[in-house]
Amino acid sequence: MTSDRLQQQIRFVLEIDRLKRIERRTLLTDRSRRENSAEHSWHIALMAVLLAEHADGDGDGGGGLDLFRVVRMLLVHDLVEIDAGDTFCYDEAANHDKEEREHRAAERIFGLLPEDQEREMWELWREFEARETAEARYANALDRLQPMLHNYHTGGGTWREHGVTRRQVVARNQVMEEGAAALWEHARRFLDDAVARGLLEE
Amino acid sequence: MTSDRLQQQIRFVLEIDRLKRIERRTLLTDRSRRENSAEHSWHIALMAVLLAEHADGDGDGGGGLDLFRVVRMLLVHDLVEIDAGDTFCYDEAANHDKEEREHRAAERIFGLLPEDQEREMWELWREFEARETAEARYANALDRLQPMLHNYHTGGGTWREHGVTRRQVVARNQVMEEGAAALWEHARRFLDDAVARGLLEE
Repeated sequence: MTSDRLQQQIRFVLEIDRLKRIERRTLLTDRSRRENSAEHSWHIALMAVLLAEHADGDGDGGGGLDLFRVVRMLLVHDLVEIDAGDTFCYDEAANHDKEEREHRAAERIFGLLPEDQEREMWELWREFEARETAEARYANALDRLQPMLHNYHTGGGTWREHGVTRRQVVARNQVMEEGAAALWEHARRFLDDAVARGLLEE
Repeated sequence: MTSDRLQQQIRFVLEIDRLKRIERRTLLTDRSRRENSAEHSWHIALMAVLLAEHADGDGDGGGGLDLFRVVRMLLVHDLVEIDAGDTFCYDEAANHDKEEREHRAAERIFGLLPEDQEREMWELWREFEARETAEARYANALDRLQPMLHNYHTGGGTWREHGVTRRQVVARNQVMEEGAAALWEHARRFLDDAVARGLLEE
């Protein structure tokens, strides 16, 4: 007999398939369509592995960072969007009740799992959102870097579509500096270039 | 200045975005479309974390398994499809030159990275393909389980579409037994049910 525990886990595995249907604003680099939150999560989870040497640890240049924890956070960080949807980061109205919507989503979705795993999901998600650990700060830096890279490499992407300015991009993404200063430094340079080339308003 | 090393890494990060455009045969659970290899990779990477207790280690019930290595394998296991495409597992003709096509793809794609990371990608991919370690066997078990689950929960999915029989499904997926016997046991039960309900030919 399949245990109740495995049944609950499989139920969850099937439920999270719906993240593949959550559309983000970001375009794929070939501009063919917008990306979804599941493939976005894959992309930044792999980026976490590839760019680990640029993560800032607790003042010692990335040493001691639990990279597997970063990857697990990134794999689960968007699951709440299954119910709450993707909230465009420059949409102030939608961001108003984002927290409440996502909290309700977490209760329903994580609640499908056995209790110990439900707790683990909450911990990973809360840690990501709180940005208090070096792992969470690095994870957040990647979550900010990837859409900027896509906008830059798709002729301005959602920046141009929504008339977003450099000031807004910097205000939103400067937090990268806390988790991966070298990557933020890199981003600042391509933002300068984006302004120079008219892809982003000053 | 951005280092050459970071430039190479970012070049690779942009290149792998193309995995989101590689279509697999498997349908999403809501049957709205086929899934792509990037979101599939996300799905099974998270499954690896959720189902870890069902992995078989080296004879001691999962103990000692390097789960982060499993997850890294799963994040990279399909990258070669960017050039080689997804090869339908029941298409014998296409599987004939699969190895050669994928090897060439790995050379080009992994070759975009700095040498140490190129080597790391090769190691992860070869380990996954060889199925000689407990980590690779568990990773492969998840890569087999997920499309079966989707077929079962989409009224037969690609089984019905291509007239695949239980004998074929078992022949292809029995290898799961080596990496996660409990999950293979679970799969056998829903395969029985799929046959009983006419979703899969005997």
